[in-house]
Amino acid sequence: MADRTARSGEFDLIARFFAPLAAAWPGAYGLEDDAALLGVSDGIDRVVTTDALVEGVHFLPDDPPDRVARKALRVNLSDLAAMGATAEAYTLALQIPAERDDDWIAALARGLAADQARFGVTLIGGDTVSARGPALLSVTAIGRLSHGGPLRRNGAASGDDVYISGTIGDGGLGLRARRGEAADLDSVQRQYAVDRYRLPEPRVALGPALVGTASACLDVSDGLVADLGHLARASGLAAEILIDNVPWSEAAAASRDYPATERIAAGDDYELLFTAPPVRRDTVKAIAQAAGTPVARIGRTLSGSGVRVLDSGGVALVLGTTGWRHR
Amino acid sequence: MADRTARSGEFDLIARFFAPLAAAWPGAYGLEDDAALLGVSDGIDRVVTTDALVEGVHFLPDDPPDRVARKALRVNLSDLAAMGATAEAYTLALQIPAERDDDWIAALARGLAADQARFGVTLIGGDTVSARGPALLSVTAIGRLSHGGPLRRNGAASGDDVYISGTIGDGGLGLRARRGEAADLDSVQRQYAVDRYRLPEPRVALGPALVGTASACLDVSDGLVADLGHLARASGLAAEILIDNVPWSEAAAASRDYPATERIAAGDDYELLFTAPPVRRDTVKAIAQAAGTPVARIGRTLSGSGVRVLDSGGVALVLGTTGWRHR
Repeated sequence: MADRTARSGEFDLIARFFAPLAAAWPGAYGLEDDAALLGVSDGIDRVVTTDALVEGVHFLPDDPPDRVARKALRVNLSDLAAMGATAEAYTLALQIPAERDDDWIAALARGLAADQARFGVTLIGGDTVSARGPALLSVTAIGRLSHGGPLRRNGAASGDDVYISGTIGDGGLGLRARRGEAADLDSVQRQYAVDRYRLPEPRVALGPALVGTASACLDVSDGLVADLGHLARASGLAAEILIDNVPWSEAAAASRDYPATERIAAGDDYELLFTAPPVRRDTVKAIAQAAGTPVARIGRTLSGSGVRVLDSGGVALVLGTTGWRHR
Repeated sequence: MADRTARSGEFDLIARFFAPLAAAWPGAYGLEDDAALLGVSDGIDRVVTTDALVEGVHFLPDDPPDRVARKALRVNLSDLAAMGATAEAYTLALQIPAERDDDWIAALARGLAADQARFGVTLIGGDTVSARGPALLSVTAIGRLSHGGPLRRNGAASGDDVYISGTIGDGGLGLRARRGEAADLDSVQRQYAVDRYRLPEPRVALGPALVGTASACLDVSDGLVADLGHLARASGLAAEILIDNVPWSEAAAASRDYPATERIAAGDDYELLFTAPPVRRDTVKAIAQAAGTPVARIGRTLSGSGVRVLDSGGVALVLGTTGWRHR
């Protein structure tokens, strides 16, 4: 783990807070060498992804640092799951604002430790820099691809079903709640939404299990409709969803300021959006059950291009400047 | 390549500037999926390292962006070389200050393209974020380990020779020159030093070739003496170097304001510091020649702890507040 800053105590930071996170990975060498060994992969393909969270963009200065660190890790685990891979190790590049003290870093490391135990991943390297500027956590996660993978965005065929895991819009609702909006939520709903925003649930069991069954997959980070657009465009198809079939949490459904048409445009859900041919409906159900992950069928792909959102009467909504609405 | 910022045109940035850099790696899928495939490694171990450069800490705001990008890549290639590995792919997390325009990003991508061709590596993923704050480039490089590796810091035995590649102190001299110091350099010397600071030469041929011959190895980023201290401590030994045997560039030797005792304490050299038993002197020579990399024998390891720096009379210097000096 290199450190080339002038900030005193950076070696201590690594030894105190980060080296313990690397203890379970022999090839990380306690973060004392210049690089880490991944180990031979025995014919299994490895998959790599990098995602960064920046203070003021992806999280707020008063978000708890343990949650911020876990989210930085989780968004990467979500990317690997969307490809059908299971994370095993990660590196962390950390820009620490000069005004943050050791307690902040300790909390961050505690969050990482909790999620390492939860998801079976290990820190194997990284870099820390003290700088004027916002906190930044860039995680590179490395995983093993399930046999028969990867899942890609471009594999959908015309007439495939469209599925989504979990519920949609909670990340966006949590961000609104953090900003003091969504005033019609009660305190339990508000806390639920904030928790979902701060700590997405990467679908690490579902993604790899979908290899061989799903025809295309990605994780929802830009918003359900936007990401379905990415999948459809990559596959050379159109897609349509029935807005009434999209699953909502109780909190999202309760917020009148946050209608369904806005939930499907909000981002930060980290649910898996995937397609599969109709003949595999029972298989998808069985996989979802085995993974312990709720999955809903919300639409289908068809020839053409673009995404249509249909209301309960089958009428297509149009995207206006403030979200989707009736024509 | 994920992008979760509100900055318009980020997808365009990736398509225009970064996807072309990923074209040679099929498993990068044009940066359009959530993650990239490394490919099966056929029994060869993979090695991973992450190093970040931050504006104002590791480079200056008016440093040319193509050089900054190449340095960000090169410091990672240097880490892999120090372990005896050869880089094959990398990811890039890029924080772009809001005030930087597309030309800045285009220049950055041009620099990466130049070094991709030079070093045979390919961009396979990453993230871009527009944020208030300094530019930050975090590179994670992945490589293949040479058979018999890795080279580590802790493998030196008492009585091993200590070697250094290239010349020492040029990075530090270049930084001084950039700050308007080192006034006694002529314009050619000044430019040489600035170039060395901005664009270190990772010893990518030497490092992997040293596997099986060197007993310990690291790259010099904190300064020759500090990094020799890391190697000695990891190996449970002391080390001593003869300051007259340390190789200097003409520019460094010409600067009277920058004596040898300061050059050995300056960082940012990215030369390989390694040890090997005396019976392998001919082998080291042959490896250096085959790699086309100058290598000098500058000292030895011995039992005990700490680093001693000896002058031409064999007298040990002591580290004072302003560098090494006679007692």
